[in-house]
Amino acid sequence: MTVVTLLTDFGLRDGYPGVMKGVIWKIAPHVQIADLSHAITPHDILEASLQVWRAWSYFPDGTIHVAVVDPGVGTSRRPLAAKVGTHYFVGPDNGIITKILECAEDDKTSVNFVHLDQPQYWLPAVSHVFHGRDIFAPVAAYLANGVPLNKLGTEISDPVRLEIPKPIKTPVGWLGQVIHVDHFGNLSTNFLAHHIDQPNELIIQINGKQIVGIVATFGERPSGTLIALLDSSNSLAISVVNGNAAEYLHARTGDQVELIAHA
Amino acid sequence: MTVVTLLTDFGLRDGYPGVMKGVIWKIAPHVQIADLSHAITPHDILEASLQVWRAWSYFPDGTIHVAVVDPGVGTSRRPLAAKVGTHYFVGPDNGIITKILECAEDDKTSVNFVHLDQPQYWLPAVSHVFHGRDIFAPVAAYLANGVPLNKLGTEISDPVRLEIPKPIKTPVGWLGQVIHVDHFGNLSTNFLAHHIDQPNELIIQINGKQIVGIVATFGERPSGTLIALLDSSNSLAISVVNGNAAEYLHARTGDQVELIAHA
Amino acid sequence: MTVVTLLTDFGLRDGYPGVMKGVIWKIAPHVQIADLSHAITPHDILEASLQVWRAWSYFPDGTIHVAVVDPGVGTSRRPLAAKVGTHYFVGPDNGIITKILECAEDDKTSVNFVHLDQPQYWLPAVSHVFHGRDIFAPVAAYLANGVPLNKLGTEISDPVRLEIPKPIKTPVGWLGQVIHVDHFGNLSTNFLAHHIDQPNELIIQINGKQIVGIVATFGERPSGTLIALLDSSNSLAISVVNGNAAEYLHARTGDQVELIAHA
Repeated sequence: MTVVTLLTDFGLRDGYPGVMKGVIWKIAPHVQIADLSHAITPHDILEASLQVWRAWSYFPDGTIHVAVVDPGVGTSRRPLAAKVGTHYFVGPDNGIITKILECAEDDKTSVNFVHLDQPQYWLPAVSHVFHGRDIFAPVAAYLANGVPLNKLGTEISDPVRLEIPKPIKTPVGWLGQVIHVDHFGNLSTNFLAHHIDQPNELIIQINGKQIVGIVATFGERPSGTLIALLDSSNSLAISVVNGNAAEYLHARTGDQVELIAHA
Repeated sequence: MTVVTLLTDFGLRDGYPGVMKGVIWKIAPHVQIADLSHAITPHDILEASLQVWRAWSYFPDGTIHVAVVDPGVGTSRRPLAAKVGTHYFVGPDNGIITKILECAEDDKTSVNFVHLDQPQYWLPAVSHVFHGRDIFAPVAAYLANGVPLNKLGTEISDPVRLEIPKPIKTPVGWLGQVIHVDHFGNLSTNFLAHHIDQPNELIIQINGKQIVGIVATFGERPSGTLIALLDSSNSLAISVVNGNAAEYLHARTGDQVELIAHA
Repeated sequence: MTVVTLLTDFGLRDGYPGVMKGVIWKIAPHVQIADLSHAITPHDILEASLQVWRAWSYFPDGTIHVAVVDPGVGTSRRPLAAKVGTHYFVGPDNGIITKILECAEDDKTSVNFVHLDQPQYWLPAVSHVFHGRDIFAPVAAYLANGVPLNKLGTEISDPVRLEIPKPIKTPVGWLGQVIHVDHFGNLSTNFLAHHIDQPNELIIQINGKQIVGIVATFGERPSGTLIALLDSSNSLAISVVNGNAAEYLHARTGDQVELIAHA
């Protein structure tokens, strides 16, 4: 049973994700569909790219990930499908899968792209404003039905890539930033495990506050303590135990975070 | 595999839609269930009627649409099921499917209604406050299992109909209104393609602002421009490119929109 | 087809529930998954316990309920699975299923618990912060695949129990409290049918207002009237007909409610 995931900035109020499911099930009645998120900040491709990257590998081989954050809908931006290893990705060509491509290149995983230019695999009427329903959902369904990638479009090798902010080396450590604030107010940063040399001696600075050292788990500190730890994506995160770090620090995506290597 | 859609004003916080899925799968384990929306404004039957109308035709033949916005739950308002062409609709008899009936009449599609009065197809205990769980979910499941409509209730021909606001002809064009504000702040109006004669010469007036002409797609104008275009339901919509028209115009459902035919 | 339900405080924005579905379908491709709620107030185990209790019995025999509100994640709190009659429950050992256990004991339903201590049924890498993904989702999937409870962990008999507030007898009736405020602003209380002797003569007091008598349904009173009735879980609830009792009474969870037996 093939799985299709949906990630959009459509919200859950207006029925747009539901309609995409109708389109998919009309063509491929047996697929399982998982909503990843429909609450991406409108038009925020970078946020979408982080969410897809954090989620995709937990799905079965053969999963088709439909990611539609599409400020360019109806313009000349290309509709795209990609095969990365054993997973498929479908959506506008605007860089949503950049981080996945970077990892694939590091791992020498095979990657193929097609420019979706075969309208016989779309809905008969294509609107100028809702390609999630009219192009990407039907293409995902035909992929689930076994139509090969190269029937759905013309191979290309130049997909759009996002500029994803990376930490910068400083004389005393690294300068990075908050890349996501989650529902609990946890702050994910763009620091990964390899930026951290000596976890106990590290100082983390953000919005005028300092954290000394990294803990393994929330439970190591009392409720209300500001801590740093590796989150479920192995990113360095800043949290308040049983609290909300975003509120406590008045922090948001893009805020600077400094690592100072030796306390 | 039969699809059931759910549209309610129950919200996603309290588990009400989830419980409806439990009831359905207990009776019909193989159906696919798509949430259309559970964020209809509480008790807003008109909003619900627009959402169901925009979505239903994208689902497979045989889909069962359960639409429960039900301020009259527990009163003498009838529980209803309908077959409209190849689709089924289940919910309170309060007009939610009015627009679908109007289209069916225009298209000469067959329509059948039953007053759900056969409690053997309901849960054994029926509360006075949650017929979505106790009546409509089990009826949808029995429909999915192949129980014919006329076993579930007594045929009727007088379902309640909503008064749906339609544009009024004026000396210079049409007077209509905003009928929906979506997650992006796009304003859907009750103007359809046939209200628009010469798209380039049309003036659209709303909340003291004027738009001249209709564009085909967001990309034809720079970010921040107020535009009018046909949306994914072929309704005339008012948008701000990569922005939020509802915020920009302080607009909401019910606001007047004027079309002036010749600029 | 086995059903798995998910109840968490993860929100729908960050993709956490979607990732749990990926993990489940990777191991058990055929299960149906129902979201119960992902909008439990962060870390509010009591609220979660009420939601699971209100929902579970509407699901088919054999359903696996995954309930993860887990302020103690990464500490020594045990991961747990339970079989209660024909249903399974999986989650942290912090009392989420207390009310279900109380009912099971009243009904003499069989109950078995295991401490999940067999990592071969978990994801290979277990984070310190997301056991919903790393432990509870895979365990639920293996249960769905037929792995018996006693292979997943070691039998225990001392699960953590919550202190659930119960009404107190007073000289004139009962003193209880609001235990849940739903999406419509309806106030559920911890009074059940057996606290109510003579429904017509009862006075209900909350936040300085009085309600005399209990109605069967919203439709018995005009719009805007403050009423008391038995809700869909057979709890005494306080509502405003076609309105919002929480707003009207400035009420929230924990507010006192008095029953005075003879008006």
